[in-house]
Amino acid sequence: MIKHISSLQNPAVKRLLQLQEKSRVRKKEKGFIIEGIREIELAIAGGYRLTEVYFNEQLMSEKEVGAFVSAPDVLLISLSTEVYQKVAYRAGTEGIIAFAEAQHNKLEDLLLPKNPLILVAEAPEKPGNIGALLRTADAAAVDAVIIANPRTDLYNPNIIRSSVGCVFTTQIATATTSEVISFLQSQDIHIHSAILQDAVAYDVIDYKTSSAIVVGTEATGLTEAWRSVGKNIKIPMRGKIDSMNVSVAAGILIFEARRQRG
Amino acid sequence: MIKHISSLQNPAVKRLLQLQEKSRVRKKEKGFIIEGIREIELAIAGGYRLTEVYFNEQLMSEKEVGAFVSAPDVLLISLSTEVYQKVAYRAGTEGIIAFAEAQHNKLEDLLLPKNPLILVAEAPEKPGNIGALLRTADAAAVDAVIIANPRTDLYNPNIIRSSVGCVFTTQIATATTSEVISFLQSQDIHIHSAILQDAVAYDVIDYKTSSAIVVGTEATGLTEAWRSVGKNIKIPMRGKIDSMNVSVAAGILIFEARRQRG
Repeated sequence: MIKHISSLQNPAVKRLLQLQEKSRVRKKEKGFIIEGIREIELAIAGGYRLTEVYFNEQLMSEKEVGAFVSAPDVLLISLSTEVYQKVAYRAGTEGIIAFAEAQHNKLEDLLLPKNPLILVAEAPEKPGNIGALLRTADAAAVDAVIIANPRTDLYNPNIIRSSVGCVFTTQIATATTSEVISFLQSQDIHIHSAILQDAVAYDVIDYKTSSAIVVGTEATGLTEAWRSVGKNIKIPMRGKIDSMNVSVAAGILIFEARRQRG
Repeated sequence: MIKHISSLQNPAVKRLLQLQEKSRVRKKEKGFIIEGIREIELAIAGGYRLTEVYFNEQLMSEKEVGAFVSAPDVLLISLSTEVYQKVAYRAGTEGIIAFAEAQHNKLEDLLLPKNPLILVAEAPEKPGNIGALLRTADAAAVDAVIIANPRTDLYNPNIIRSSVGCVFTTQIATATTSEVISFLQSQDIHIHSAILQDAVAYDVIDYKTSSAIVVGTEATGLTEAWRSVGKNIKIPMRGKIDSMNVSVAAGILIFEARRQRG
Protein backbone atom coordinates (compact mmCIF):
# COMPACT_ATOMS: atom_id res chain seq x y z
CA MET A 1 0.00 0.00 0.00
CA ILE A 2 1.24 3.42 -0.90
CA LYS A 3 1.35 6.17 1.65
CA HIS A 4 -0.02 9.53 0.59
CA ILE A 5 0.97 12.90 2.00
CA SER A 6 -1.19 15.92 1.24
CA SER A 7 -0.68 18.14 4.29
CA LEU A 8 2.18 20.60 4.57
CA GLN A 9 1.99 19.97 8.32
CA ASN A 10 3.00 16.34 7.90
CA PRO A 11 6.34 15.87 9.73
CA ALA A 12 7.75 14.20 6.61
CA VAL A 13 7.69 17.58 4.87
CA LYS A 14 9.91 19.18 7.47
CA ARG A 15 12.22 16.16 7.42
CA LEU A 16 12.66 16.25 3.64
CA LEU A 17 13.42 19.96 3.72
CA GLN A 18 15.92 19.52 6.54
CA LEU A 19 17.65 16.69 4.72
CA GLN A 20 18.24 19.08 1.86
CA GLU A 21 19.24 22.09 3.90
CA LYS A 22 21.21 20.67 6.79
CA SER A 23 24.40 18.71 6.60
CA ARG A 24 23.99 17.54 10.20
CA VAL A 25 20.56 16.04 9.43
CA ARG A 26 22.04 14.12 6.49
CA LYS A 27 24.80 12.93 8.77
CA LYS A 28 22.41 11.85 11.51
CA GLU A 29 20.16 9.99 9.09
CA LYS A 30 23.12 8.57 7.15
CA GLY A 31 21.31 9.45 3.97
CA PHE A 32 20.30 12.21 1.64
CA ILE A 33 17.80 13.38 -0.95
CA ILE A 34 18.10 12.93 -4.71
CA GLU A 35 15.81 14.78 -7.06
CA GLY A 36 15.20 14.10 -10.74
CA ILE A 37 15.00 11.01 -12.93
CA ARG A 38 18.50 11.09 -14.37
CA GLU A 39 20.12 11.73 -11.00
CA ILE A 40 18.19 8.86 -9.40
CA GLU A 41 19.07 6.52 -12.27
CA LEU A 42 22.75 7.43 -11.96
CA ALA A 43 22.65 6.84 -8.21
CA ILE A 44 21.09 3.40 -8.68
CA ALA A 45 23.66 2.55 -11.36
CA GLY A 46 26.35 3.78 -8.98
CA GLY A 47 25.29 1.30 -6.32
CA TYR A 48 23.35 3.62 -4.06
CA ARG A 49 20.48 2.03 -2.15
CA LEU A 50 17.21 3.95 -2.20
CA THR A 51 14.89 3.35 0.73
CA GLU A 52 12.13 5.89 0.06
CA VAL A 53 10.78 7.28 -3.19
CA TYR A 54 8.42 10.26 -3.18
CA PHE A 55 6.49 11.16 -6.28
CA ASN A 56 3.77 13.49 -7.47
CA GLU A 57 1.09 11.72 -9.49
CA GLN A 58 0.39 14.81 -11.56
CA LEU A 59 3.92 14.55 -12.90
CA MET A 60 4.66 10.85 -12.78
CA SER A 61 2.40 7.82 -12.39
CA GLU A 62 2.96 5.06 -9.85
CA LYS A 63 3.68 2.72 -12.73
CA GLU A 64 6.37 5.01 -14.13
CA VAL A 65 7.94 5.32 -10.72
CA GLY A 66 7.88 1.56 -10.22
CA ALA A 67 9.54 1.00 -13.58
CA PHE A 68 12.86 2.30 -12.51
CA VAL A 69 12.71 1.75 -8.79
CA SER A 70 12.60 -1.98 -8.81
CA ALA A 71 13.99 -2.94 -5.40
CA PRO A 72 11.21 -4.63 -3.40
CA ASP A 73 11.84 -2.90 -0.09
CA VAL A 74 11.61 0.69 -1.32
CA LEU A 75 8.89 2.70 0.38
CA LEU A 76 6.74 4.53 -2.17
CA ILE A 77 5.04 7.73 -0.99
CA SER A 78 2.83 9.87 -3.20
CA LEU A 79 2.80 13.62 -2.57
CA SER A 80 0.08 16.12 -3.37
CA THR A 81 1.15 18.80 -5.81
CA GLU A 82 1.28 21.36 -3.01
CA VAL A 83 3.52 19.15 -0.88
CA TYR A 84 5.69 18.19 -3.84
CA GLN A 85 6.25 21.81 -4.77
CA LYS A 86 7.20 22.58 -1.19
CA VAL A 87 9.82 19.84 -0.91
CA ALA A 88 11.15 19.91 -4.49
CA TYR A 89 14.47 21.68 -4.45
CA ARG A 90 14.57 22.56 -8.11
CA ALA A 91 12.01 24.15 -10.35
CA GLY A 92 10.68 22.03 -13.19
CA THR A 93 11.82 18.62 -12.11
CA GLU A 94 10.17 15.44 -13.04
CA GLY A 95 8.04 14.71 -10.02
CA ILE A 96 10.33 12.30 -8.19
CA ILE A 97 12.51 12.55 -5.11
CA ALA A 98 14.31 9.74 -3.34
CA PHE A 99 16.00 9.16 -0.02
CA ALA A 100 19.22 7.23 -0.51
CA GLU A 101 21.68 5.78 1.96
CA ALA A 102 25.02 7.61 2.02
CA GLN A 103 28.13 5.71 1.03
CA HIS A 104 31.12 5.65 3.34
CA ASN A 105 33.57 7.19 0.89
CA LYS A 106 36.60 5.77 2.64
CA LEU A 107 40.03 5.68 1.06
CA GLU A 108 40.43 2.01 1.85
CA ASP A 109 37.25 1.16 -0.06
CA LEU A 110 38.52 2.59 -3.37
CA LEU A 111 38.94 -0.05 -6.04
CA LEU A 112 41.86 1.04 -8.16
CA PRO A 113 43.23 -0.48 -11.35
CA LYS A 114 46.90 -0.73 -12.19
CA ASN A 115 48.25 2.76 -12.98
CA PRO A 116 45.21 4.67 -11.80
CA LEU A 117 44.48 8.28 -12.66
CA ILE A 118 43.10 10.11 -9.64
CA LEU A 119 41.86 13.66 -9.13
CA VAL A 120 42.44 15.08 -5.64
CA ALA A 121 40.77 18.35 -4.64
CA GLU A 122 41.75 19.90 -1.33
CA ALA A 123 39.11 21.81 0.61
CA PRO A 124 36.93 22.82 -2.34
CA GLU A 125 34.20 25.07 -1.04
CA LYS A 126 31.72 26.18 -3.67
CA PRO A 127 29.25 23.44 -4.60
CA GLY A 128 29.32 24.71 -8.20
CA ASN A 129 33.06 24.16 -8.40
CA ILE A 130 32.77 20.71 -6.86
CA GLY A 131 30.02 19.86 -9.32
CA ALA A 132 32.15 20.99 -12.27
CA LEU A 133 35.11 18.96 -10.96
CA LEU A 134 32.93 15.88 -10.75
CA ARG A 135 31.61 16.41 -14.28
CA THR A 136 35.19 16.65 -15.54
CA ALA A 137 36.13 13.54 -13.56
CA ASP A 138 33.26 11.66 -15.16
CA ALA A 139 34.07 12.90 -18.67
CA ALA A 140 37.71 11.87 -18.30
CA ALA A 141 36.74 8.63 -16.55
CA VAL A 142 39.26 9.11 -13.77
CA ASP A 143 39.51 6.10 -11.51
CA ALA A 144 38.66 8.03 -8.35
CA VAL A 145 38.09 11.49 -6.96
CA ILE A 146 39.46 12.19 -3.50
CA ILE A 147 38.34 15.22 -1.50
CA ALA A 148 40.98 16.16 1.07
CA ASN A 149 39.89 18.20 4.09
CA PRO A 150 36.29 18.43 2.87
CA ARG A 151 34.41 21.57 3.87
CA THR A 152 30.99 20.36 2.84
CA ASP A 153 29.39 16.94 2.65
CA LEU A 154 29.15 15.38 -0.78
CA TYR A 155 25.41 15.03 -0.63
CA ASN A 156 24.66 18.73 -0.50
CA PRO A 157 21.80 19.18 -3.02
CA ASN A 158 23.77 21.92 -4.80
CA ILE A 159 26.60 19.46 -5.44
CA ILE A 160 24.23 16.80 -6.74
CA ARG A 161 22.59 19.37 -8.99
CA SER A 162 25.70 21.11 -10.29
CA SER A 163 27.39 17.76 -10.91
CA VAL A 164 24.32 16.71 -12.94
CA GLY A 165 24.51 13.42 -11.06
CA CYS A 166 28.25 12.87 -11.60
CA VAL A 167 28.64 12.65 -7.84
CA PHE A 168 27.28 9.11 -8.34
CA THR A 169 29.30 8.06 -11.38
CA THR A 170 32.85 8.14 -10.06
CA GLN A 171 34.29 6.54 -6.94
CA ILE A 172 34.79 9.24 -4.34
CA ALA A 173 36.65 9.19 -1.05
CA THR A 174 37.04 11.89 1.56
CA ALA A 175 39.76 12.11 4.21
CA THR A 176 42.15 14.54 5.83
CA THR A 177 45.05 15.80 3.75
CA SER A 178 47.57 13.80 5.75
CA GLU A 179 45.53 10.62 5.33
CA VAL A 180 45.29 11.25 1.59
CA ILE A 181 49.04 11.78 1.25
CA SER A 182 49.76 8.61 3.25
CA PHE A 183 47.31 6.68 1.13
CA LEU A 184 48.80 7.86 -2.17
CA GLN A 185 52.31 7.12 -0.95
CA SER A 186 51.34 3.66 0.30
CA GLN A 187 49.94 2.88 -3.16
CA ASP A 188 53.02 4.25 -4.97
CA ILE A 189 50.88 6.80 -6.79
CA HIS A 190 52.83 9.77 -8.16
CA ILE A 191 51.62 13.04 -6.74
CA HIS A 192 51.40 16.02 -9.10
CA SER A 193 50.41 19.08 -7.13
CA ALA A 194 49.16 22.28 -8.76
CA ILE A 195 51.55 24.61 -6.92
CA LEU A 196 53.35 27.52 -8.56
CA GLN A 197 56.52 27.34 -6.47
CA ASP A 198 59.29 25.09 -7.76
CA ALA A 199 56.94 23.88 -10.43
CA VAL A 200 57.42 22.50 -13.92
CA ALA A 201 54.98 23.05 -16.78
CA TYR A 202 52.11 20.58 -16.51
CA ASP A 203 52.62 19.29 -20.04
CA VAL A 204 56.17 17.99 -19.58
CA ILE A 205 55.07 15.45 -16.97
CA ASP A 206 54.42 11.82 -17.86
CA TYR A 207 51.01 10.89 -16.49
CA LYS A 208 50.91 7.37 -17.95
CA THR A 209 52.02 5.76 -14.71
CA SER A 210 50.00 5.86 -11.45
CA SER A 211 49.09 9.53 -11.11
CA ALA A 212 47.23 11.77 -8.75
CA ILE A 213 46.57 15.33 -9.90
CA VAL A 214 46.05 17.55 -6.88
CA VAL A 215 44.32 20.94 -6.96
CA GLY A 216 43.61 23.43 -4.18
CA THR A 217 41.26 26.36 -3.88
CA GLU A 218 41.38 29.48 -6.02
CA ALA A 219 41.76 31.68 -2.97
CA THR A 220 44.58 29.93 -1.14
CA GLY A 221 45.87 27.10 -3.31
CA LEU A 222 47.15 23.90 -1.74
CA THR A 223 48.36 23.67 1.85
CA GLU A 224 52.03 23.30 2.75
CA ALA A 225 51.70 19.55 3.17
CA TRP A 226 51.66 19.07 -0.61
CA ARG A 227 54.85 21.07 -1.26
CA SER A 228 57.39 18.32 -1.15
CA VAL A 229 55.53 15.04 -1.55
CA GLY A 230 55.72 14.91 -5.32
CA LYS A 231 56.21 17.10 -8.36
CA ASN A 232 54.75 20.58 -8.47
CA ILE A 233 53.07 21.42 -11.75
CA LYS A 234 51.74 24.64 -13.17
CA ILE A 235 49.75 25.76 -16.13
CA PRO A 236 51.82 28.54 -17.72
CA MET A 237 49.88 31.78 -17.31
CA ARG A 238 50.56 34.04 -20.23
CA GLY A 239 48.08 36.82 -19.50
CA LYS A 240 47.64 39.69 -17.08
CA ILE A 241 45.93 37.68 -14.36
CA ASP A 242 47.60 34.92 -12.39
CA SER A 243 44.65 32.80 -11.37
CA MET A 244 42.34 30.45 -13.16
CA ASN A 245 38.98 28.96 -12.28
CA VAL A 246 39.77 25.78 -10.33
CA SER A 247 37.49 23.54 -12.36
CA VAL A 248 38.93 24.84 -15.63
CA ALA A 249 42.48 24.26 -14.35
CA ALA A 250 41.59 20.75 -13.21
CA GLY A 251 40.00 20.05 -16.59
CA ILE A 252 43.15 21.10 -18.44
CA LEU A 253 45.38 18.96 -16.20
CA ILE A 254 43.16 15.88 -16.20
CA PHE A 255 42.61 15.95 -19.94
CA GLU A 256 46.33 16.33 -20.60
CA ALA A 257 46.81 13.14 -18.57
CA ARG A 258 43.99 11.47 -20.47
CA ARG A 259 45.40 12.64 -23.81
CA GLN A 260 48.78 11.09 -22.99
CA ARG A 261 47.12 7.85 -22.01
CA GLY A 262 45.43 7.78 -25.44
CA MET B 1 37.31 71.05 -7.14
CA ILE B 2 35.92 67.73 -6.10
CA LYS B 3 32.21 67.15 -6.03
CA HIS B 4 30.81 65.47 -2.96
CA ILE B 5 27.65 63.39 -2.79
CA SER B 6 26.18 62.55 0.59
CA SER B 7 22.45 62.25 -0.13
CA LEU B 8 20.83 59.04 -1.31
CA GLN B 9 18.35 61.25 -3.14
CA ASN B 10 21.04 62.67 -5.41
CA PRO B 11 20.15 61.68 -9.00
CA ALA B 12 23.69 60.38 -9.46
CA VAL B 13 22.87 57.52 -7.09
CA LYS B 14 19.99 56.33 -9.22
CA ARG B 15 22.09 56.68 -12.37
CA LEU B 16 24.97 54.63 -10.97
CA LEU B 17 22.60 51.88 -9.90
CA GLN B 18 20.86 51.85 -13.27
CA LEU B 19 24.16 51.68 -15.09
CA GLN B 20 24.88 48.50 -13.19
CA GLU B 21 21.46 46.95 -13.47
CA LYS B 22 20.25 47.90 -16.93
CA SER B 23 21.86 47.00 -20.21
CA ARG B 24 19.81 49.66 -22.00
CA VAL B 25 21.12 52.40 -19.73
CA ARG B 26 24.70 51.30 -20.45
CA LYS B 27 23.87 51.32 -24.14
CA LYS B 28 22.30 54.78 -23.99
CA GLU B 29 25.22 56.24 -22.04
CA LYS B 30 27.80 54.35 -24.13
CA GLY B 31 29.58 53.50 -20.93
CA PHE B 32 29.54 51.34 -17.85
CA ILE B 33 30.64 51.02 -14.24
CA ILE B 34 33.83 49.37 -13.03
CA GLU B 35 34.34 48.60 -9.37
CA GLY B 36 37.55 47.70 -7.58
CA ILE B 37 41.19 48.71 -7.87
CA ARG B 38 42.44 45.79 -9.89
CA GLU B 39 39.56 45.91 -12.34
CA ILE B 40 40.04 49.66 -12.89
CA GLU B 41 43.79 49.24 -13.37
CA LEU B 42 43.21 46.48 -15.92
CA ALA B 43 40.69 48.64 -17.78
CA ILE B 44 43.14 51.55 -17.95
CA ALA B 45 45.89 49.22 -19.14
CA GLY B 46 43.44 47.83 -21.69
CA GLY B 47 42.92 51.27 -23.19
CA TYR B 48 39.57 52.10 -21.63
CA ARG B 49 38.94 55.78 -20.98
CA LEU B 50 37.56 56.66 -17.55
CA THR B 51 35.55 59.85 -17.35
CA GLU B 52 34.29 59.73 -13.76
CA VAL B 53 35.82 58.24 -10.64
CA TYR B 54 33.76 57.91 -7.45
CA PHE B 55 35.46 57.14 -4.18
CA ASN B 56 34.73 56.87 -0.50
CA GLU B 57 37.23 58.73 1.66
CA GLN B 58 36.82 56.29 4.52
CA LEU B 59 38.23 53.59 2.27
CA MET B 60 40.55 55.48 -0.05
CA SER B 61 42.04 58.97 0.13
CA GLU B 62 41.89 61.49 -2.71
CA LYS B 63 45.63 61.14 -3.05
CA GLU B 64 45.40 57.36 -3.44
CA VAL B 65 42.68 57.76 -6.03
CA GLY B 66 44.70 60.35 -7.92
CA ALA B 67 47.74 58.10 -7.96
CA PHE B 68 46.28 55.67 -10.40
CA VAL B 69 43.77 57.85 -12.19
CA SER B 70 46.19 60.22 -13.82
CA ALA B 71 44.24 61.49 -16.82
CA PRO B 72 43.62 65.22 -16.34
CA ASP B 73 40.01 65.27 -17.50
CA VAL B 74 38.64 62.64 -15.13
CA LEU B 75 35.88 63.91 -12.88
CA LEU B 76 36.54 62.96 -9.24
CA ILE B 77 33.50 62.60 -6.99
CA SER B 78 33.67 61.67 -3.33
CA LEU B 79 30.81 59.67 -1.87
CA SER B 80 29.66 59.48 1.74
CA THR B 81 29.90 56.00 3.24
CA GLU B 82 26.13 55.64 3.07
CA VAL B 83 26.03 56.55 -0.61
CA TYR B 84 29.04 54.42 -1.42
CA GLN B 85 27.50 51.39 0.24
CA LYS B 86 24.31 51.95 -1.72
CA VAL B 87 26.00 52.09 -5.12
CA ALA B 88 28.80 49.56 -4.53
CA TYR B 89 27.88 46.38 -6.30
CA ARG B 90 30.15 44.05 -4.37
CA ALA B 91 30.74 43.64 -0.69
CA GLY B 92 34.19 44.50 0.60
CA THR B 93 35.55 46.44 -2.33
CA GLU B 94 38.18 49.05 -2.07
CA GLY B 95 36.16 52.23 -2.10
CA ILE B 96 36.45 53.11 -5.77
CA ILE B 97 34.03 52.98 -8.69
CA ALA B 98 34.57 54.39 -12.16
CA PHE B 99 32.50 55.21 -15.20
CA ALA B 100 34.29 54.13 -18.36
CA GLU B 101 33.46 54.59 -22.00
CA ALA B 102 32.46 51.38 -23.76
CA GLN B 103 34.62 50.13 -26.60
CA HIS B 104 33.08 49.35 -29.95
CA ASN B 105 34.14 45.70 -30.05
CA LYS B 106 33.88 45.47 -33.81
CA LEU B 107 35.36 42.60 -35.78
CA GLU B 108 37.12 44.99 -38.14
CA ASP B 109 38.92 46.66 -35.23
CA LEU B 110 40.64 43.44 -34.10
CA LEU B 111 44.40 43.59 -34.44
CA LEU B 112 45.51 40.08 -35.25
CA PRO B 113 49.03 38.68 -35.59
CA LYS B 114 50.04 36.15 -38.19
CA ASN B 115 48.54 32.76 -37.29
CA PRO B 116 46.21 34.04 -34.59
CA LEU B 117 44.55 31.86 -31.97
CA ILE B 118 40.98 33.00 -31.40
CA LEU B 119 38.25 31.82 -29.05
CA VAL B 120 34.70 32.17 -30.37
CA ALA B 121 31.75 31.66 -28.03
CA GLU B 122 28.28 31.59 -29.51
CA ALA B 123 25.41 32.99 -27.44
CA PRO B 124 26.91 32.38 -24.02
CA GLU B 125 24.31 33.30 -21.44
CA LYS B 126 25.48 32.98 -17.87
CA PRO B 127 27.78 35.83 -16.82
CA GLY B 128 29.75 33.34 -14.70
CA ASN B 129 30.49 31.21 -17.75
CA ILE B 130 31.47 34.25 -19.80
CA GLY B 131 33.74 35.39 -16.97
CA ALA B 132 35.40 31.97 -16.80
CA LEU B 133 35.88 31.95 -20.60
CA LEU B 134 37.54 35.36 -20.43
CA ARG B 135 39.83 34.23 -17.60
CA THR B 136 40.87 31.23 -19.69
CA ALA B 137 41.38 33.48 -22.73
CA ASP B 138 43.63 35.73 -20.65
CA ALA B 139 45.60 32.82 -19.18
CA ALA B 140 46.20 31.33 -22.62
CA ALA B 141 46.84 34.77 -24.13
CA VAL B 142 44.56 34.14 -27.08
CA ASP B 143 44.73 36.90 -29.65
CA ALA B 144 41.03 37.69 -29.50
CA VAL B 145 37.72 36.55 -28.10
CA ILE B 146 34.70 36.84 -30.34
CA ILE B 147 31.17 36.58 -28.97
CA ALA B 148 28.76 35.52 -31.71
CA ASN B 149 25.08 36.34 -31.26
CA PRO B 150 25.65 37.91 -27.83
CA ARG B 151 22.77 37.61 -25.39
CA THR B 152 24.11 40.05 -22.85
CA ASP B 153 26.34 43.09 -23.11
CA LEU B 154 29.95 42.65 -22.14
CA TYR B 155 29.83 45.31 -19.47
CA ASN B 156 27.32 43.55 -17.25
CA PRO B 157 28.82 43.92 -13.74
CA ASN B 158 28.56 40.16 -13.21
CA ILE B 159 30.79 39.59 -16.23
CA ILE B 160 33.33 42.15 -15.07
CA ARG B 161 33.33 40.56 -11.63
CA SER B 162 33.42 36.91 -12.66
CA SER B 163 36.13 37.62 -15.22
CA VAL B 164 38.17 39.28 -12.42
CA GLY B 165 38.80 42.07 -14.92
CA CYS B 166 39.82 39.79 -17.81
CA VAL B 167 37.08 41.42 -19.87
CA PHE B 168 39.63 44.24 -20.22
CA THR B 169 42.76 42.22 -20.93
CA THR B 170 41.92 40.52 -24.23
CA GLN B 171 40.62 42.05 -27.45
CA ILE B 172 36.93 41.26 -27.74
CA ALA B 173 34.54 41.61 -30.64
CA THR B 174 30.84 40.89 -30.85
CA ALA B 175 28.82 40.26 -34.01
CA THR B 176 26.19 37.97 -35.46
CA THR B 177 27.17 34.39 -36.18
CA SER B 178 27.07 34.95 -39.95
CA GLU B 179 29.28 38.03 -39.64
CA VAL B 180 31.74 36.07 -37.52
CA ILE B 181 31.90 33.21 -40.01
CA SER B 182 32.42 35.63 -42.91
CA PHE B 183 35.13 37.41 -40.98
CA LEU B 184 37.01 34.21 -40.12
CA GLN B 185 36.75 33.00 -43.71
CA SER B 186 37.94 36.33 -45.11
CA GLN B 187 40.98 36.11 -42.86
CA ASP B 188 41.71 32.48 -43.79
CA ILE B 189 41.37 31.42 -40.18
CA HIS B 190 40.67 27.72 -39.72
CA ILE B 191 37.42 27.11 -37.89
CA HIS B 192 37.33 24.32 -35.31
CA SER B 193 33.80 23.95 -34.00
CA ALA B 194 32.96 22.01 -30.85
CA ILE B 195 30.21 19.88 -32.42
CA LEU B 196 29.74 16.18 -31.75
CA GLN B 197 28.43 15.24 -35.20
CA ASP B 198 31.05 14.26 -37.80
CA ALA B 199 33.73 15.29 -35.36
CA VAL B 200 37.31 14.24 -34.83
CA ALA B 201 39.01 14.15 -31.45
CA TYR B 202 40.20 17.62 -30.49
CA ASP B 203 43.76 16.46 -29.92
CA VAL B 204 44.44 15.22 -33.45
CA ILE B 205 43.98 18.70 -34.92
CA ASP B 206 46.94 20.96 -35.71
CA TYR B 207 46.26 24.33 -34.11
CA LYS B 208 49.59 25.90 -35.01
CA THR B 209 48.21 27.70 -38.05
CA SER B 210 45.50 30.41 -37.86
CA SER B 211 42.85 28.87 -35.64
CA ALA B 212 39.49 29.76 -34.20
CA ILE B 213 38.08 27.44 -31.55
CA VAL B 214 34.31 27.78 -31.45
CA VAL B 215 32.12 26.72 -28.53
CA GLY B 216 28.35 26.90 -28.06
CA THR B 217 26.13 26.72 -25.03
CA GLU B 218 25.81 23.73 -22.74
CA ALA B 219 22.09 23.51 -23.37
CA THR B 220 21.94 23.63 -27.15
CA GLY B 221 25.51 23.58 -28.49
CA LEU B 222 26.39 25.49 -31.65
CA THR B 223 23.85 26.53 -34.27
CA GLU B 224 23.63 24.83 -37.67
CA ALA B 225 25.66 27.58 -39.35
CA TRP B 226 28.86 26.16 -37.87
CA ARG B 227 28.29 22.60 -39.11
CA SER B 228 30.13 22.74 -42.38
CA VAL B 229 32.38 25.77 -42.27
CA GLY B 230 35.38 24.02 -40.79
CA LYS B 231 36.38 20.93 -38.84
CA ASN B 232 34.15 19.66 -36.06
CA ILE B 233 36.06 18.68 -32.94
CA LYS B 234 35.03 16.88 -29.80
CA ILE B 235 36.46 16.07 -26.45
CA PRO B 236 36.04 12.30 -26.08
CA MET B 237 33.55 11.70 -23.29
CA ARG B 238 34.41 8.52 -21.46
CA GLY B 239 31.93 8.70 -18.61
CA LYS B 240 28.22 8.31 -18.01
CA ILE B 241 27.30 11.90 -18.81
CA ASP B 242 27.65 13.47 -22.23
CA SER B 243 28.03 17.12 -21.38
CA MET B 244 30.75 19.22 -19.90
CA ASN B 245 30.80 22.67 -18.39
CA VAL B 246 31.36 25.04 -21.32
CA SER B 247 34.19 26.96 -19.69
CA VAL B 248 35.98 23.72 -18.77
CA ALA B 249 35.59 22.42 -22.33
CA ALA B 250 36.88 25.71 -23.77
CA GLY B 251 39.84 25.59 -21.37
CA ILE B 252 40.78 22.08 -22.52
CA LEU B 253 40.56 23.03 -26.20
CA ILE B 254 42.38 26.36 -25.92
CA PHE B 255 45.18 24.93 -23.81
CA GLU B 256 45.68 22.03 -26.20
CA ALA B 257 46.17 24.65 -28.94
CA ARG B 258 48.51 26.61 -26.69
CA ARG B 259 50.43 23.43 -25.77
CA GLN B 260 50.98 22.62 -29.44
CA ARG B 261 52.20 26.14 -30.10
CA GLY B 262 54.77 25.67 -27.33
